[in-house]
Amino acid sequence: MKKVATYYVFSGANTALTKVDKPIPALNDGEILVGIRYTTLCGSDLHTYCGLRNEPCPTILGHEIVGVIEEISPSHGGLDAQGSSLHIGDLITWTVFSSDPNTGVYQSETPQKNDKLYKYGHRQITEQDSLHGGLATHIILRPHTCIRILSKDISLAVAATINCAVATSAGALRLADTVTGKNIHIAGIGLLGLVSIAMCRELGAKNIIASDINPARLAMAKSFGATHTINLREASDNTLFQDIAVDRFIDMSGSPDAMELGIDTLGLHGRAVLVGAVFNQRKTGIDAEKVIRKLLTIKGLHNYNYTDFSTAVDFIIDNWQKYPFESLIEREFPLEEVNAAIAYALAEKPIRAGLYIHTSTAQI
Amino acid sequence: MKKVATYYVFSGANTALTKVDKPIPALNDGEILVGIRYTTLCGSDLHTYCGLRNEPCPTILGHEIVGVIEEISPSHGGLDAQGSSLHIGDLITWTVFSSDPNTGVYQSETPQKNDKLYKYGHRQITEQDSLHGGLATHIILRPHTCIRILSKDISLAVAATINCAVATSAGALRLADTVTGKNIHIAGIGLLGLVSIAMCRELGAKNIIASDINPARLAMAKSFGATHTINLREASDNTLFQDIAVDRFIDMSGSPDAMELGIDTLGLHGRAVLVGAVFNQRKTGIDAEKVIRKLLTIKGLHNYNYTDFSTAVDFIIDNWQKYPFESLIEREFPLEEVNAAIAYALAEKPIRAGLYIHTSTAQI
Repeated sequence: MKKVATYYVFSGANTALTKVDKPIPALNDGEILVGIRYTTLCGSDLHTYCGLRNEPCPTILGHEIVGVIEEISPSHGGLDAQGSSLHIGDLITWTVFSSDPNTGVYQSETPQKNDKLYKYGHRQITEQDSLHGGLATHIILRPHTCIRILSKDISLAVAATINCAVATSAGALRLADTVTGKNIHIAGIGLLGLVSIAMCRELGAKNIIASDINPARLAMAKSFGATHTINLREASDNTLFQDIAVDRFIDMSGSPDAMELGIDTLGLHGRAVLVGAVFNQRKTGIDAEKVIRKLLTIKGLHNYNYTDFSTAVDFIIDNWQKYPFESLIEREFPLEEVNAAIAYALAEKPIRAGLYIHTSTAQI
Repeated sequence: MKKVATYYVFSGANTALTKVDKPIPALNDGEILVGIRYTTLCGSDLHTYCGLRNEPCPTILGHEIVGVIEEISPSHGGLDAQGSSLHIGDLITWTVFSSDPNTGVYQSETPQKNDKLYKYGHRQITEQDSLHGGLATHIILRPHTCIRILSKDISLAVAATINCAVATSAGALRLADTVTGKNIHIAGIGLLGLVSIAMCRELGAKNIIASDINPARLAMAKSFGATHTINLREASDNTLFQDIAVDRFIDMSGSPDAMELGIDTLGLHGRAVLVGAVFNQRKTGIDAEKVIRKLLTIKGLHNYNYTDFSTAVDFIIDNWQKYPFESLIEREFPLEEVNAAIAYALAEKPIRAGLYIHTSTAQI
């Protein structure tokens, strides 16, 4: 008798997800069947739900996922990214994409830009291919997905965030180049901002300035290691930049106002890394003369590469209890209540809402 | 009897330069006295003359200079940047600045940003310190000025441009990273744009798109190696960017319109290097979402470093006859007619006007 997977289908903006039960297909070469344990709702899931982003429909949302191995294709190499053997029952995290170096436009530093990319939580459901999103009991991992085994004592809620928010923050820090001993300004204190603050702290940044429009978020920033906070609605706060020459500006907010302030207040040799602005908006005005005279660098980051993913896993293994990561998943729901979870996340705007999943076919 | 230098003093915007004769002072430790042979008028000299830039006055303008050694302080190391011995009568070019690594804020990759920089052609005349500009018969080179000996068969007019336009173009190419096999777009076809085109050609760029608003300049671009030209006043020309994904955009124009087009039409992994916008102007609008999704890099360059200078010298030695560089110094004047040269340059906007100088104290 075939095992059955349950998933929740997104068919269009602002419409409740609908439940589907479907027999789990036989694995293709190199695939791994995972029983999902926990999925967190990312901001981009909510943007798609509200119609602010377009995804091919129908689809299964959710890409911040952690789960346990239920089945491994015999043709899979059987190793994780560190060379450890994969076994049924292992708790694992994996990259949000599989990127085959033998297809499409592939560059090893940016596998996430392969035009033949397979991206979990962002694919249309077809008859042949449906188990690819996190709002489900099961997911099938494709070849060229980078996998890491996790210890079972880790918080599932925190572990779920590794492969999107944490890995993207690791990518931002890579593009920021050296942060040790530097003055850092991080705008937009959601999960990516908080992770980036903690990463900068662990890497020995000198001053870490957090900016946002929400005082509660600025308080969180302090608990993750920010040395200074700026409320972007209080112009007087900006005088801080007269005293501290910013070496690195990381924008997780996507706000043109925040990006303009952040780039404008960079010091000589400063670097800006733009991450948050993945939606349509007004142009961001830059003073080209300052970019030139201060020898500034501005870089954009979208998603992350395999190295960033491993950096993220190591960071969370080492630090998930050192900073209050667990408190960021402010409320959790069983998978069956996914529509209530989405409604809560949209109304209350927590850092994350979580969905826990019990499947009958495997046990942690 | 002391030797006498003649220089032409700039005292304020749109006011004729005035001639001064002054005995040449004894050299300080590590200095070199140079008899100037040729100075070209840079765009920034003209901007200062018109009041579009401010320099401390009174000053001696002119920094694109070539000359022969007349005297070497006994405490000078006696070598050029390649380790060749310096001798009286050697024709030399030198960096537009001297940057002492033991003073100020010094970084070896960006010596031009030392806050204790000594920059030729940009200093106030004082009783103690006056021979520092190119509109003169003599100049005194400070310690920590990088010098290269030139063969005496080089065109003096072309050689004069090495230490500003050519070296800055070399810096732009350094920041552009790889250009070999890439599609390049260079906006602003003045001397920097033309040099950059020829450098990209020599480095094996695939397509070199030159853009400007002046058809005559676009024709020049072709003779320096551009494969395509775009008149920025002809919107239909921009359709070229639908066929060619630009990997590198170098802006020498300083025009926000050109920078916006250039950044907007970069392909995946594209890099923009901004050089021209060294004057006050409106903000340049960037689409942050494109910067992010296409993983773009935007860098500013102001002046150049010692490596760029050596790259520039080597490039001109190898290529000054291969491309029509001599034709770019469209008219030349004796130093005594410097005011006529400035009037001509302002009225006719040649790529360069040149000033040749005969001193009585040394012969090439």
